[in-house]
Amino acid sequence: MAPTKAPDSSRRSDRSRRAIHEAALALVGEVGYQRTTIEGIAARAGVGKQTIYRWWPSKAAVLMEAFLGLAGRADEETGPRSDDAAQGIPDTGDLAADLKLVLRATVDELNDPALEAPTRALTAEGIVDAKLGAEFVAKLLDPQLALYVTRLRAAQEAGELRADADPRIALELLIGPLMHRWLLRTLPLTHAYADAIVDYTLGGLTPRP
Amino acid sequence: MAPTKAPDSSRRSDRSRRAIHEAALALVGEVGYQRTTIEGIAARAGVGKQTIYRWWPSKAAVLMEAFLGLAGRADEETGPRSDDAAQGIPDTGDLAADLKLVLRATVDELNDPALEAPTRALTAEGIVDAKLGAEFVAKLLDPQLALYVTRLRAAQEAGELRADADPRIALELLIGPLMHRWLLRTLPLTHAYADAIVDYTLGGLTPRP
Repeated sequence: MAPTKAPDSSRRSDRSRRAIHEAALALVGEVGYQRTTIEGIAARAGVGKQTIYRWWPSKAAVLMEAFLGLAGRADEETGPRSDDAAQGIPDTGDLAADLKLVLRATVDELNDPALEAPTRALTAEGIVDAKLGAEFVAKLLDPQLALYVTRLRAAQEAGELRADADPRIALELLIGPLMHRWLLRTLPLTHAYADAIVDYTLGGLTPRP
Repeated sequence: MAPTKAPDSSRRSDRSRRAIHEAALALVGEVGYQRTTIEGIAARAGVGKQTIYRWWPSKAAVLMEAFLGLAGRADEETGPRSDDAAQGIPDTGDLAADLKLVLRATVDELNDPALEAPTRALTAEGIVDAKLGAEFVAKLLDPQLALYVTRLRAAQEAGELRADADPRIALELLIGPLMHRWLLRTLPLTHAYADAIVDYTLGGLTPRP
């Protein structure tokens, strides 16, 4: 399971990084972004704060990497993946089925208690702090949205999506309702809801002949 | 313009209430929900803090009423309205046109600099504080969403909306993308975007014969 033998210091670094990520996510979920400090993360991770200052320029950078690490581990747990990042959304030739699979997985992630508090804390901070929000959108959200664009373009080429639909807008019809319901907690976020969003969005709300 | 003559003390109360609302909205926009205090609101409004404690049970209650007052004033400014709250969304018989009108107005409201900071501060707080979030959804958001349900039901009766579509889900396809774009600042929130959301949602993303 470990094809390359890392030197001890590198293994120690990996362990420390992981401990720092976990401490950062736990803390921001518990006390919010504002009250999370480098000192607090260091104490919780059992490392010196100089270790954190040496590796990251800011608290935001630590958290960004912690979320990226989390996304990476979630991918590992759901099985092997190729190096082709664009395969984030499967293409079985059935657009509705593929989108339902991805949106249901998103529902599961959003409902995961371990992720909920830090994700809410960070999203809330980005909503009031434009600079931090822009950074998280650029580094965390946009790469995910690009996967939708790729899948929707393929659907367009296959004639499954209207030729005049802008994939960048179309994806917001799928993601927007999900996030709105989750962020504002208006109603329960379920697989049935994810399926309905896909069916309504693809089929449209006006009657078809 | 003032059909009933209010006694002096009532007029003074109205002035104080308005000053307190404005102070609360300004403060929460500037320093966030957590750091907004009854004392701070009182000082800014030029009233004693006992005045606020006498009229409202909590800081959240002051802000809730301030937002409700704001919504009321926005309605006054856009012209006369009947007592029928359900007429919030016009019914001209053209569903697409009516929805575009309402979503464009929502875009304008969200882009209004005077509303932006307090709305962001309160939304962000509701995202991390489930109790406060639920209160704002119940008192501020749900009554607005009910107007969409009413309009979409009428469209359903007129055959303009699929009979099998749930209006409560359908409205999230319209509101969700707008709020997602505004909250996360992914891309500019424009009238053209509001129009596209209506067209895509009603027509659907898959080709029609």
